Amino acid sequence: MRYELYYWPGIQGRGEYVRLALEDSSVDYADVARGARDMAAMMKIVEARSGTPPFAPPFLKAGKLVIGQTANILLYLGSRHGLAPKAEAGRLWVHQLQLTIADLVLEIHDTHHPLGPSLYYEEQRAPAKKRSDEFWKERVPKYLGYFERLLEGSGGAYVTGRKATYVDLSLFQIVDGLRYAFPRHMKAFEREIPGLVDLHNRVAARPNIKTYLSSDRRIAFNEDGIFRHYKELDR
Amino acid sequence: MRYELYYWPGIQGRGEYVRLALEDSSVDYADVARGARDMAAMMKIVEARSGTPPFAPPFLKAGKLVIGQTANILLYLGSRHGLAPKAEAGRLWVHQLQLTIADLVLEIHDTHHPLGPSLYYEEQRAPAKKRSDEFWKERVPKYLGYFERLLEGSGGAYVTGRKATYVDLSLFQIVDGLRYAFPRHMKAFEREIPGLVDLHNRVAARPNIKTYLSSDRRIAFNEDGIFRHYKELDR
Repeated sequence: MRYELYYWPGIQGRGEYVRLALEDSSVDYADVARGARDMAAMMKIVEARSGTPPFAPPFLKAGKLVIGQTANILLYLGSRHGLAPKAEAGRLWVHQLQLTIADLVLEIHDTHHPLGPSLYYEEQRAPAKKRSDEFWKERVPKYLGYFERLLEGSGGAYVTGRKATYVDLSLFQIVDGLRYAFPRHMKAFEREIPGLVDLHNRVAARPNIKTYLSSDRRIAFNEDGIFRHYKELDR
Repeated sequence: MRYELYYWPGIQGRGEYVRLALEDSSVDYADVARGARDMAAMMKIVEARSGTPPFAPPFLKAGKLVIGQTANILLYLGSRHGLAPKAEAGRLWVHQLQLTIADLVLEIHDTHHPLGPSLYYEEQRAPAKKRSDEFWKERVPKYLGYFERLLEGSGGAYVTGRKATYVDLSLFQIVDGLRYAFPRHMKAFEREIPGLVDLHNRVAARPNIKTYLSSDRRIAFNEDGIFRHYKELDR
């Protein structure tokens, strides 16, 4: 079976957490809406009046199943493709961590869109600056400190032990994205999270991820995605 | 086995989605941190340096398992206690809907805390007003319109058909909370969502929920929770 991933063209966004899992596990998939040409097919699924239409992209077609919500897609893929434990306790734990990452991703989005996703960044620069300052003062230490602590106690090179899970791939993306969006803040903060910096290197060196990152399938960061570099927010 | 639910005392918050599921299915549980006395026990679990410490309350102790993240707790409870299908496709679908509700809950929180959770509401009144306006103009129609559409197509009285799931209980809470926080906005908007209004009534009339709502186990809405009534945001 060939998976089909549907997501907005031109950005990494939430689709990227799924792409990293698909790439790392070498499963066959089509990145359907990479070309704007296929947007119509995607919107038809989202706007369906019967069946199980997802609220928004990304979603994954797996045979007859249509699975929406990033963390839910990873829950489905993880234990099938060696990126999560098969036993319930382990599956729930890894999923719980991914949901915490999902909360962090929403807060990252809010740094440039504190007044909501419907207004342009340019309409909310001043509140975005306040939210970003708060984000670095309170939220980044809380979230990344949590994952750093888990890494310290894991007894292995990855967050849950000796085997990589989709959570490790997602944390790679968080570190990578924060470096892109907030290079100054991140440079100063990285000394607090040596474990996560190591983890980022370790994930980047995994053969399939290394190949993916240097391919044109990896979309570059840009100011339409979750991680946006606005100089004034990084001071 | 008696479940133990851990959550901040004095508010419904995210714990309420779990409480509604536990109450509806009549399982035995202790609401541990209802008394401030037990906060220390809760924080000890959150701050543990080994095992599987959750990032934040709510979390559920189920025997040896400690399960965090509201939607993850419901994923665990749902198929065990008749509030979600047992087959994988149905479980994923119901969970996906709960994750969409979780996104909505975060946006509801952002209406009074657009500059972040660490500042007081009083420090962010003006941006809160802008975010609330945007929320009612763009986001409520998108989210509640989505669930209304699912109800229309479900072929039953509940979102996924003839049987109630934890998603229906959570949507009851969303309608109830929006009525409390934004009575004027909600009054005008309810004509757009007759299915959800019916669903709210139907859930409130379920025997166990009815008993729960009139008991002192149901904490009243207040201005420390997710749904807060600030008159100026409801104009």
